[in-house]
Amino acid sequence: MPTITEVTVEDVRFPTSLSADGSDAMNKDADYSATYVSIRTDDPGTAGFGFTFTTGRGNDVCVLAAQLRAVPLIGRDVDELIGDLGAVYREMKSDSQLRWLGPEKGVEHLALAAVMNALWDVAARAAGKPLWRLLVDMPTEQLVDLTDLEYLSDVLTRDEAVAMLRETEPTRAARIAELERSGYPCYTTSAGWLGYSDEKLRRLCQEAVDAGYRHVKLKVGANVDDDIRRLRIAREVIGPDAQLMIDANQVWDVPQAIEWVGRLAEFDPLWIEEPTSPDDILGHAAIRKAVAPIGVATGEHGMNRVLFKQLFQAEAIDFCQLDAARLGSINEIVSVLLMAKKFGVPVCPHAGGVGLCELVQHLSVFDYVAVSASLENRVTEYVDHLHEHFVEPCVVQDGAYVLPTAAGYSAEMHEASVREYAFPDGSYWAGRRGAASA
Amino acid sequence: MPTITEVTVEDVRFPTSLSADGSDAMNKDADYSATYVSIRTDDPGTAGFGFTFTTGRGNDVCVLAAQLRAVPLIGRDVDELIGDLGAVYREMKSDSQLRWLGPEKGVEHLALAAVMNALWDVAARAAGKPLWRLLVDMPTEQLVDLTDLEYLSDVLTRDEAVAMLRETEPTRAARIAELERSGYPCYTTSAGWLGYSDEKLRRLCQEAVDAGYRHVKLKVGANVDDDIRRLRIAREVIGPDAQLMIDANQVWDVPQAIEWVGRLAEFDPLWIEEPTSPDDILGHAAIRKAVAPIGVATGEHGMNRVLFKQLFQAEAIDFCQLDAARLGSINEIVSVLLMAKKFGVPVCPHAGGVGLCELVQHLSVFDYVAVSASLENRVTEYVDHLHEHFVEPCVVQDGAYVLPTAAGYSAEMHEASVREYAFPDGSYWAGRRGAASA
Repeated sequence: MPTITEVTVEDVRFPTSLSADGSDAMNKDADYSATYVSIRTDDPGTAGFGFTFTTGRGNDVCVLAAQLRAVPLIGRDVDELIGDLGAVYREMKSDSQLRWLGPEKGVEHLALAAVMNALWDVAARAAGKPLWRLLVDMPTEQLVDLTDLEYLSDVLTRDEAVAMLRETEPTRAARIAELERSGYPCYTTSAGWLGYSDEKLRRLCQEAVDAGYRHVKLKVGANVDDDIRRLRIAREVIGPDAQLMIDANQVWDVPQAIEWVGRLAEFDPLWIEEPTSPDDILGHAAIRKAVAPIGVATGEHGMNRVLFKQLFQAEAIDFCQLDAARLGSINEIVSVLLMAKKFGVPVCPHAGGVGLCELVQHLSVFDYVAVSASLENRVTEYVDHLHEHFVEPCVVQDGAYVLPTAAGYSAEMHEASVREYAFPDGSYWAGRRGAASA
Repeated sequence: MPTITEVTVEDVRFPTSLSADGSDAMNKDADYSATYVSIRTDDPGTAGFGFTFTTGRGNDVCVLAAQLRAVPLIGRDVDELIGDLGAVYREMKSDSQLRWLGPEKGVEHLALAAVMNALWDVAARAAGKPLWRLLVDMPTEQLVDLTDLEYLSDVLTRDEAVAMLRETEPTRAARIAELERSGYPCYTTSAGWLGYSDEKLRRLCQEAVDAGYRHVKLKVGANVDDDIRRLRIAREVIGPDAQLMIDANQVWDVPQAIEWVGRLAEFDPLWIEEPTSPDDILGHAAIRKAVAPIGVATGEHGMNRVLFKQLFQAEAIDFCQLDAARLGSINEIVSVLLMAKKFGVPVCPHAGGVGLCELVQHLSVFDYVAVSASLENRVTEYVDHLHEHFVEPCVVQDGAYVLPTAAGYSAEMHEASVREYAFPDGSYWAGRRGAASA
């Protein structure tokens, strides 16, 4: 019965702004960062790692918030905690003083995600299973007990959740076998950052095609003539049959989104991602109606399950791009997966950043095996950045995530990476005070 | 031309949890707190004060966030800043790294509100006017230029905003004269906290009636039989003609809200406040339809103007309870006031907490004089707590806020109060380490 002795939270920042990796119409100078949580116990073999993702400044605010969130864990019995991760999640999210600062959104919710992600890593490691497998093998009643259904009963009751999961049980083994053979399909965003030159864009699109990708995503929204030129290049390279997605990162008002996307329609995009404020449910619904058959996608800034509930109710989106480090970890992600299934909306998780690919591979696998039971219109984001800092990096082959097999949630970073990129005192930053992230 | 030399942010916490002041079905142990911002310049006569409100733990997270928000202000010329508070607001909110942590919600938005509130205080003091008067006297084009219309153009264009403000210009003086005579109507929440005994409730309701209030608000939602008993007491004391409001502080799911409010309908409440998640626009719309003619009110957790836009679009609320320290200060509040006017929804600002009454009196006066031009169905919250800590506390007489006349935004606290209640090292807390807020 190990006991939690220490929860450390570190401010880890990578200087990605120097290379324009991650540049889009809204985020021009992102330094991809992690609020990195390590849970230690009095048993050296029992530990867990988790994080939330930020883009630089303010990562210290998330660190402080996560430290506060973790206080009640110190001294707790690990078996008791991981035996009921619903109880600890509810305890954490219902701290009424911290709740005031959201509720369930912004820094406090990112911090909760970071800490709960680490607890889920503890649980999966303790079970000796990859996180997706821990969830797939969990008795349905137990899984539903830890799923956050608060504020959802108008669209999803507990009984419905149980029934939906039960329905997939007989066929789960077949889908696992399929994923062992073929992996889970993904697409690449690495080609299309806004800060890249046309030549680099062309080269990266060709590399994506050569690597087996059938989907390529480009950033748009800064200048419509540039967008037209860049989309023409991409479409030329990938051909008429591959899928092209576009992502505006929230830069438009609703009428502007409709007009701008109309001008890009000739390139036949599969979806327009984040066309406007991530909070604007009714705005997304209006855009979707106007730009069909181009699909509408959003979710990387989807703050909580109540927002997703309404996106589904309002028929506002064609693709649900939930984020593994913004929603309240598995407890809230399973709610969204279940609602998406009920409303028939495919989940294509947001990834990239730092370590989000490592997390979402588990979510997509669990979704396919135990919830959606479908790969139709489903493709998970993949960005080829920063994987070298992870102990068990995700592996992509032929445009698909290879099924992860190591125990845990794949969130552990190399200690050397943490030491080097800890802000502001890690070896990388110490010599650069006043640089990009300062 | 004074220059900003220092922006200090202090963590000020009052031990209100000890007396059950502020207790409701969601917030059982609030320690009312302020993230308190002081802007100093090289001119001793030029300064400004602002804050956001929190309920205890996590106030330090807001303090750190506000410190980061304030960094770009150091060394800036005051006249230039206050000459274009739209530019500084846009600069602050579009910091793309900090934006990732919201966007425009949670801790980062609270912090932005705190800093911008202090800048607005600087501006009003420099003009020698109370904040409401600064806004009323401002040329309409200038006021619209600093109003945040991003993501709103599907319901409110710049031209409409200008026209709406212009329309009230000829009659503003008459409304100011009226407010000088009668004040702005308010209601009291001081009677109805959930932690109070029946005897205390009865006594406080009687005191409210005796003090001239025509509206009394009670907390509900923990136990329906208790609610029925407490509402019966309140209705007995205030009589059939006074207005009774009820406030559930987000404890219900949508179907439960409809059922519970139905059981309280016999007491003829004017509104049910925060019946469910503050993010659930469509849920509020469903509840409103089901519980009519009881009105639906929400907004103290309304995270930003995009949420309010949708509450109006979906016809989800009868009363808009915006919060002066959660929205992005005047720049975003004016947007919401204008949209509320357009959609015909009365604004009854949330107050109470620490210093919110001091702020909202300015907002309600500005709204009446320059935007809504109506007092129908309008009543602003008042809670009789913690005013003694303010240098220019609001004054309530005969159930109305007396028109504030001192220059500024009424946000300055006594230095002695800040010293005593600074957390954790102020004189009050230093001897109580490990107590309520620790």
